[in-house]
Amino acid sequence: MTSPHKTAAVLIIGNEILSGRTQDINLSYLGRRFAQLGVILQEARVIPDNEEVVIRTVHALRAEADFVITTGGIGPTHDDITTQCIARAFGVGVIRHPEAEQRLLDYYGADEITDARMKMACVPDGAELIENPVSAAPGYRIENVYVLAGVPPIMQAMFETLTHRFAGGAPILSRTVSCGLAESRLAAGLTEIQARYTDMSIGSYPFARHGKLGVSVVLQSDQVERLDLARREVGKLIEQLGGVADYAEEA
Amino acid sequence: MTSPHKTAAVLIIGNEILSGRTQDINLSYLGRRFAQLGVILQEARVIPDNEEVVIRTVHALRAEADFVITTGGIGPTHDDITTQCIARAFGVGVIRHPEAEQRLLDYYGADEITDARMKMACVPDGAELIENPVSAAPGYRIENVYVLAGVPPIMQAMFETLTHRFAGGAPILSRTVSCGLAESRLAAGLTEIQARYTDMSIGSYPFARHGKLGVSVVLQSDQVERLDLARREVGKLIEQLGGVADYAEEA
Repeated sequence: MTSPHKTAAVLIIGNEILSGRTQDINLSYLGRRFAQLGVILQEARVIPDNEEVVIRTVHALRAEADFVITTGGIGPTHDDITTQCIARAFGVGVIRHPEAEQRLLDYYGADEITDARMKMACVPDGAELIENPVSAAPGYRIENVYVLAGVPPIMQAMFETLTHRFAGGAPILSRTVSCGLAESRLAAGLTEIQARYTDMSIGSYPFARHGKLGVSVVLQSDQVERLDLARREVGKLIEQLGGVADYAEEA
Repeated sequence: MTSPHKTAAVLIIGNEILSGRTQDINLSYLGRRFAQLGVILQEARVIPDNEEVVIRTVHALRAEADFVITTGGIGPTHDDITTQCIARAFGVGVIRHPEAEQRLLDYYGADEITDARMKMACVPDGAELIENPVSAAPGYRIENVYVLAGVPPIMQAMFETLTHRFAGGAPILSRTVSCGLAESRLAAGLTEIQARYTDMSIGSYPFARHGKLGVSVVLQSDQVERLDLARREVGKLIEQLGGVADYAEEA
């Protein structure tokens, strides 16, 4: 990668992910979208709904990455503790944001709005609201920390309102070449190709599909011509070894 | 939770997870299994195939948890760097383990064994092998770090050979009560129940299924009688609010 890329970290907050009750799908979404936006997602952490752990981890991640995305813990119930943690991490109080109150009132109507729902208008003092196109209760940003919902469709909708803030780096492109050879047969050749394309990430991922073993070689770079050159070399390697190279185009 | 539980951390190593190309499913498996074994999974991290990052993260996690499970990066290709990182983290060299060589030889046969495949017999000096019932190439343990494959069926098979080492704490049991009420309507009542059951984790998870909104309340504890008491209270709360409580039994 030759052009400068900003970096991101993802913080997944929720006992339900660590207990295995809920399968996280937010990380893979954010990983794909950040690559398309030219941002390097450098780390993700999954932590429990524990105030000290949340505060400590927010500090660690926001010092290391340009952007930190948190998911989960901003709902109306007692186990939604993200906002109080973020406020404590930044040494500010929690306020009820007037604009957020208005959005909730418009969404639920005066008859249906309750104290519990109004909890979702609470943000750390100084935070800027992030729109929730699905169900009104907003996320928010404070400094480089973007606090989003955990429910995937809501998380995704919130994220998509923010992409103009993250974009700017050259998109990180992927090319995949698959074949039915054993991964170990490609190992020496791939090592040699990687040594000549040091600006590129080349990964090798074995798979079993419909009972047949094979391997996908994934090349990533923001340099489209180099990427296509390297892809052709991987294809040639596969053919020299007696395999059939299957090229798939990716974003 | 009143009885002592050991703790675990999971370290997922792999660019393909952070790029969103591969959806991780190892964490949810490990989360469920550790709960059944009475071990608290306290954190998970996802990091790239980067030597300095792997070493730094192994150090951090193994200081905090009784057991660290790593997944990924022990295959035959150039991007499989976990073993050299673990060896460096422990300040030891990498050796070809004779027993691992033998297992690979038995599995592949003398005609099919290659240098690349024999790379999978390499472990940090002093490591103890972990059996791979699927495809021979072993994982290994060094001190409190258990290094497993990333491919889910292999990771799971390796993990299951280890469970006697992790077991011992009282299993962390779950009970779920679901209903079609909005989460915010339960908020005040759940806060009150949680305040009386401080030894228990009570989580509230909204869902949308077949176009209908609802919420699942999940209670976790190693005390089965207290769990069932608290579950009944959540059910009563739902019925007082005009909802129908749906009880699901879990492990």
